[in-house]
Amino acid sequence: MSIVIRNTLHNNKHVDIYIEGSDIKYIGKVEFKADTELDGTGTAAIPGFINTHTHSSMTVFRGWADDLDLNTWLTRRIWPMEGKLTKKIVYNSSKLACLEMIRSGTTCFMDMYFHPLEVARAAEDMGIRVYTGPVFMDKVSPETMEAGIARADKTLESIEEMGELVRAALCPHAVYTCSQEILSWCGKKALEMDIPIHFHLMETKNEKINHKKETSDDLIDTLNRLNLLNPKLIAAHCVWADERDMEIMEQQGVSVSHNPISNMKLAVGNHMDMSSMRRNGLNVTLGTDGPASNNSLSMLDTMKFAAIGTKSRYDDPQKGDAAYVYKCATENGAEALGLNAGKIEAGKKADILLIDIGHECMQPAWNPLTSHIVYSGAPGMIRDSIINGRIVMKNRKVTGAQKVISDFNRIVGKWFKEKVAEI
Amino acid sequence: MSIVIRNTLHNNKHVDIYIEGSDIKYIGKVEFKADTELDGTGTAAIPGFINTHTHSSMTVFRGWADDLDLNTWLTRRIWPMEGKLTKKIVYNSSKLACLEMIRSGTTCFMDMYFHPLEVARAAEDMGIRVYTGPVFMDKVSPETMEAGIARADKTLESIEEMGELVRAALCPHAVYTCSQEILSWCGKKALEMDIPIHFHLMETKNEKINHKKETSDDLIDTLNRLNLLNPKLIAAHCVWADERDMEIMEQQGVSVSHNPISNMKLAVGNHMDMSSMRRNGLNVTLGTDGPASNNSLSMLDTMKFAAIGTKSRYDDPQKGDAAYVYKCATENGAEALGLNAGKIEAGKKADILLIDIGHECMQPAWNPLTSHIVYSGAPGMIRDSIINGRIVMKNRKVTGAQKVISDFNRIVGKWFKEKVAEI
Repeated sequence: MSIVIRNTLHNNKHVDIYIEGSDIKYIGKVEFKADTELDGTGTAAIPGFINTHTHSSMTVFRGWADDLDLNTWLTRRIWPMEGKLTKKIVYNSSKLACLEMIRSGTTCFMDMYFHPLEVARAAEDMGIRVYTGPVFMDKVSPETMEAGIARADKTLESIEEMGELVRAALCPHAVYTCSQEILSWCGKKALEMDIPIHFHLMETKNEKINHKKETSDDLIDTLNRLNLLNPKLIAAHCVWADERDMEIMEQQGVSVSHNPISNMKLAVGNHMDMSSMRRNGLNVTLGTDGPASNNSLSMLDTMKFAAIGTKSRYDDPQKGDAAYVYKCATENGAEALGLNAGKIEAGKKADILLIDIGHECMQPAWNPLTSHIVYSGAPGMIRDSIINGRIVMKNRKVTGAQKVISDFNRIVGKWFKEKVAEI
Repeated sequence: MSIVIRNTLHNNKHVDIYIEGSDIKYIGKVEFKADTELDGTGTAAIPGFINTHTHSSMTVFRGWADDLDLNTWLTRRIWPMEGKLTKKIVYNSSKLACLEMIRSGTTCFMDMYFHPLEVARAAEDMGIRVYTGPVFMDKVSPETMEAGIARADKTLESIEEMGELVRAALCPHAVYTCSQEILSWCGKKALEMDIPIHFHLMETKNEKINHKKETSDDLIDTLNRLNLLNPKLIAAHCVWADERDMEIMEQQGVSVSHNPISNMKLAVGNHMDMSSMRRNGLNVTLGTDGPASNNSLSMLDTMKFAAIGTKSRYDDPQKGDAAYVYKCATENGAEALGLNAGKIEAGKKADILLIDIGHECMQPAWNPLTSHIVYSGAPGMIRDSIINGRIVMKNRKVTGAQKVISDFNRIVGKWFKEKVAEI
């Protein structure tokens, strides 16, 4: 199967983009016909956004637990309900999330949640790329480490059998929910299998303080000794990473997933030091976090908050510039995941957005696209989305969208109302 | 002319809304036919958003002066170009802004800019409600006070002659650009005419410090003595208002326009004390500020930043709740302007949005609309917009939208390229 996008803007030039199978093969003037011809007149082609941290199925809880302190949010709302989740609920909730992500320009996301195979199946059914896999929380679960590893191996095997859109990741939840043994196992396994690790790190100030109290060791040193700090690790949040933490993470090739909206909404502190991370050479990527703590899954929102939150954090409008934030949401995300995407180039995966450059929020047409995308962009400007060489959104239409939403409200709505009465 | 919106959701009930002329006449079951029948099935009716602080024509500078410190931004970019603005440029730039505002749910905006009659004309032509009027900057302009007042009177007269959508306001720029005499005149005139005053106040820390140095008087006391602090005043920004400033403003019935995105983008300090203002009983409204310092004109963006920025400022997720922020963007805005709108009620102006409740970002359908609007909303969920009893957007289509954008890029683009070469 081949696609030609005709007459789209790329790096300020009008080009055709030829896609064969899942890859971009050629950018320039394409003289022959492809199986699918896509008129790109009035559009610019940009790489799809890569969301490196979310819990997509939490759409089920969106709008139900806002404006609460973190402890109430977790212990009174989220955890009691999560204990009741079924495969069907996770699948249908994640499907809604995939729809929202596609419609707002995300072409790949990294997910950590219960029933990861259901998330993978939802992503596959919707045509969006996902990295997910077994979650570990052995410190707070009755499961033995051996049983956890056996479960993980089984999940990883199942992921192997899925299509190209689904890639494996290891998801140890956090240092306060995982044993050191399992963290060490994850670090080793990820390197062996060459798959990313998805991990919460230093989201709150207490995480570091408590670890020090319990172990007399600095959190970063513990993790380093466990070999969890390696180029496969994507550490989400890192709000409270200090200079020394950043230096060590950089030395070990760790990537960071910055989640500005969730951090500000849950008020864990607007301290994430994006600017120092950049200076330290860390690979910073962006994540939305889950829809119960953002609540949008749009990377456009996240880019704007990342840029503007950084300016505000430093009282310096020159920090968090649009071009850098855009790079975090595309190229850096791909690098962190080891995904050959994040740029429009021959040889890369065809994960492409066609942006309607005639949209009101993309004006003036003579000013940089990246500024408009980051500071004034809205999902409506994204006309088409191609993921892995397949058109998943055309003229803003995603096949089956209405059914995804009605199934969600029927199936998940019934479950939610029943279960919420029990807690 | 009459409109019936059939079968829309309002306060969780399915109702019909009957509009006659510019007003909502009846909400309930409408048995008869109106001139225009609008099927509201699958929508919720909410009041349009009211943007109480912008410089809409600055769309011309959007994306051209990002990520700069305030001084460079003003002195090297914005001011030199503003000196060259013509009526035609202001008109076409504001028209683009009106389009973006309509498409993102704003039904009324307050504008301060050069050539206010052109902004008024643009708003009228686009069918959106505007408050605008003469700008005063007599401290930094060669114009005498008498000439300024004569100009103002003429502008106010011209506004009187325009249609219902255009309402007069007095726009003294700020304390550091206006003489005390003109501020006092504005305070008095606004009360006489019963029209709002649009004014920048305490945007930066230096504004208060410099005033104190120059006059040995506290800024708030000076303004109070000048009778500028009165119920007609809408003070934009107020980032650096302290407890005493707030108390005095509250006593005098002043309204505040909070502009969270601009404040964070220009990094004047995320100190705006929305929560204390609320506690003090101040009427807080929301503004986008101009498209060169935000850069979006969407009030959805502004609501999200207001809520989440407040949580972050206080390190408290319970502050800045969705319902309050939504009220600031609707009811409080109307109250500040003295506009009989901001709510869907019989007797109010028909400034109404029909929200597509089947949109992916409005799910789960069983959770509060206000949370979804503030935290996960996107312009695409706004299906129709009615302003002053006229349908200005239907199924997301605004008549003449393409021409507004192409005129802007042709006329304003030519001007911009010529003038930018001269500075």
